[in-house]
Amino acid sequence: MKKIIFLIMLGLSCHGFGQTDEEMLKQIYKSALLEGKSYDWLKTLSVDIGGRLSGSLNAERAVNWGKAELDELGLDKVWLQPVMVPKWVRGAKEFAYIKASSGETTNVNICALGGSVATNPLGVTANVVEVKNFEALKALGEAGLKGKIVFYNRPMQADLINTFEAYGGCVDQRYMGAVEAAKYGAAGVIVRSMTLNIDNLPHAGSMTYGELPVSKRIPSAAISTKDANLLSSMLNLDSSLQFYFKQNCKQLDDVKSYNVIGEITGSQYPNDYIIVGGHLDSWDLGDGSHDDGAGIVQSMEVLRLFKLLKIKPKHSIRVVMFMNEENGLRGAKAYAKAATEKGETHVMSLESDSGGFTPRGFSFDCTDATFNKVLSWKPLFKPYLIHYFEKGGTGADVGPLKTSTNATAGLRPDSQRYFDHHHAANDTFDAVNKRELELGAASMAALVYLFDTHGL
Amino acid sequence: MKKIIFLIMLGLSCHGFGQTDEEMLKQIYKSALLEGKSYDWLKTLSVDIGGRLSGSLNAERAVNWGKAELDELGLDKVWLQPVMVPKWVRGAKEFAYIKASSGETTNVNICALGGSVATNPLGVTANVVEVKNFEALKALGEAGLKGKIVFYNRPMQADLINTFEAYGGCVDQRYMGAVEAAKYGAAGVIVRSMTLNIDNLPHAGSMTYGELPVSKRIPSAAISTKDANLLSSMLNLDSSLQFYFKQNCKQLDDVKSYNVIGEITGSQYPNDYIIVGGHLDSWDLGDGSHDDGAGIVQSMEVLRLFKLLKIKPKHSIRVVMFMNEENGLRGAKAYAKAATEKGETHVMSLESDSGGFTPRGFSFDCTDATFNKVLSWKPLFKPYLIHYFEKGGTGADVGPLKTSTNATAGLRPDSQRYFDHHHAANDTFDAVNKRELELGAASMAALVYLFDTHGL
Repeated sequence: MKKIIFLIMLGLSCHGFGQTDEEMLKQIYKSALLEGKSYDWLKTLSVDIGGRLSGSLNAERAVNWGKAELDELGLDKVWLQPVMVPKWVRGAKEFAYIKASSGETTNVNICALGGSVATNPLGVTANVVEVKNFEALKALGEAGLKGKIVFYNRPMQADLINTFEAYGGCVDQRYMGAVEAAKYGAAGVIVRSMTLNIDNLPHAGSMTYGELPVSKRIPSAAISTKDANLLSSMLNLDSSLQFYFKQNCKQLDDVKSYNVIGEITGSQYPNDYIIVGGHLDSWDLGDGSHDDGAGIVQSMEVLRLFKLLKIKPKHSIRVVMFMNEENGLRGAKAYAKAATEKGETHVMSLESDSGGFTPRGFSFDCTDATFNKVLSWKPLFKPYLIHYFEKGGTGADVGPLKTSTNATAGLRPDSQRYFDHHHAANDTFDAVNKRELELGAASMAALVYLFDTHGL
Repeated sequence: MKKIIFLIMLGLSCHGFGQTDEEMLKQIYKSALLEGKSYDWLKTLSVDIGGRLSGSLNAERAVNWGKAELDELGLDKVWLQPVMVPKWVRGAKEFAYIKASSGETTNVNICALGGSVATNPLGVTANVVEVKNFEALKALGEAGLKGKIVFYNRPMQADLINTFEAYGGCVDQRYMGAVEAAKYGAAGVIVRSMTLNIDNLPHAGSMTYGELPVSKRIPSAAISTKDANLLSSMLNLDSSLQFYFKQNCKQLDDVKSYNVIGEITGSQYPNDYIIVGGHLDSWDLGDGSHDDGAGIVQSMEVLRLFKLLKIKPKHSIRVVMFMNEENGLRGAKAYAKAATEKGETHVMSLESDSGGFTPRGFSFDCTDATFNKVLSWKPLFKPYLIHYFEKGGTGADVGPLKTSTNATAGLRPDSQRYFDHHHAANDTFDAVNKRELELGAASMAALVYLFDTHGL
């Protein structure tokens, strides 16, 4: 009799928390590592398609590819969600040099920042004022800045362990640098690239002119860290040197694009959604492998693993390939708006947009009760060395879906190498490791499985 | 009064466990990331010196470099500890091809395994028998194997999260493959490279002939995983194909080399030692950046950080650059023997020999009491995302120092990329990330600091 009760208990534990979860996670990781498709997908998206800035032909190709691949998976629904996106084009390659008082010139590596205006066709030549922050800018005022090129050179803080924190502490220079400098009549803005590496690569990224009238807008470019160090040291010796740059970028009219969405419809709560996603657009200098090709193929892989392992989810599980995260977030806003209009409940929305490196865990925005539930799952992840479960900061694309009761989450891969590649020409397929990418996909599938099984 | 007691308690906590440890770890990580020298050191060791197989000229150059750098640090003692090491030389580059029954040949990538004999000067040509393990070999017996080339092709298991475990599950093919196959009169041995990547690089590594008389020794080489897959699929279609290989390696007489040792003498327990080390020798195909240049420069950095931060250790802290880990472990044995002879107590011996990737934690061989103490330090490491503290498996070089009461430990970096580079031509400086290397050095310094402060 004792034996029977024991066997019943064993049976029960297989259907509740415990055995089944552990076993299911094992199957998920095993399948992702032995039969994964994320790496092959990434190769196509990165190498065959390439960089895919919103509104570009490549972004359109990526949309078509994404839909076709989802169609292949045998999901319950696959569709395109239209969204108007900004179309900024880089034009002919930028060009810049430092001209010493002696007349000698040194070429440096720059790239126009996303959203920037062009220089005039002959380029801008001006003296340079180096600043570390907006307070220093304000102190210099119009007297010190009019007609000058403002050079923002505050480096990312290398002693912060989380490189995203270091990025957060610097990115105001890139995003707001031009609008702040324009207030004082500056002629242009050069910003130190947002990376901890010292190399020759300029790193792109978005910037804003805020409410600045078109006539007041000044061109804004990123300079490689090596050249930023060079410019700074040359300025120390020769404060009257001049900087020349020429860029040909342009903001065109908005164009129509799409979020790509696929769904496995839930067996018990078909109108309650758990979504996984990343962004399909990328900057144009590299091929967007880490940012965010990795997040796209990992999200696709989650649904593929559910199909492969014949997991029939209770909630509807969607993969969402958001368009235009980089310079507008239009896809995320359109998706959230449609969800609200249709009365869809988004239980948990998981984003992967921090690179395809070894996963360390997840961040969450959710209630304390949900977070405590998540913490109770921690032991299930231990065999996979997933240890990071913290509140706060999930992702840009899932942000608009947040409510007071639901959960959003972000995959947190190892961050050490991310900004070596971020928005630069070396964000390429060869910088992604197959196993690291697959472990991220498996971790996401595991989290989705647990939320689907146990709810909020 | 309450306030005074509170202040006294606060004061106490600054000198015991708590505030001071937390603050010291912060300083250690900050210094390692902002003023670290490990990456520059590694550049010299890897790029200027390069691969440094025991007994080679480069190994000698590495010894001289190591001693000179330690001399620069202003330690209390720096010395060379003589040790006789094996000298195996690769000779002219190996060469191999598959010859189909049709006569068509396909070149493949091989490298002689460390310790192997050469083929005869004209090379070996023979039919190939593919096996996955020694059981299959035994089943084939002399009838199936005499005069044949045995092709060991059991891949590393990709669904194991820890790649070292996958390596451990395969390496018997490389180490024992020749001695096992020679029992049945095989003409030679070709072993699938020990990596999870599918690429063209053969991975070197040591092998043994055990007690096999010289006359019975057969040549043994590693083949790249891509070529292993090719050979296997060709064998399926054409079982009578032939394999040709020629290698020119040679085991010479032992030569004199050195462990390089530096010490900060302890203020309270000068004859009780805490050591940090890695191995100075490497395989010859790459420049040994991950295996184990990283461990060498991280260990040097521990003592440099102690000096920089003016930490006066209670125990004597030594850096030991072990010679000949790869094909003999002679340095480790010589160090342990000398320690025993001098009656030195080795309290804790920490090895870094798992690559210069993001550190995840440490493994320990120690008493339960010591391990519980280590676990109590876990919260101190949380800000640095160091989470892995497990018992078992520390390192080859610290192994001979283990007693029933002391502790040995191994740094455990992220393992996903390690075997992509291990013993191959792409174990090079560019594959090491500066921050990841520095975080490893800081973690080691932190652990040494805690053991020095709180004992076993």
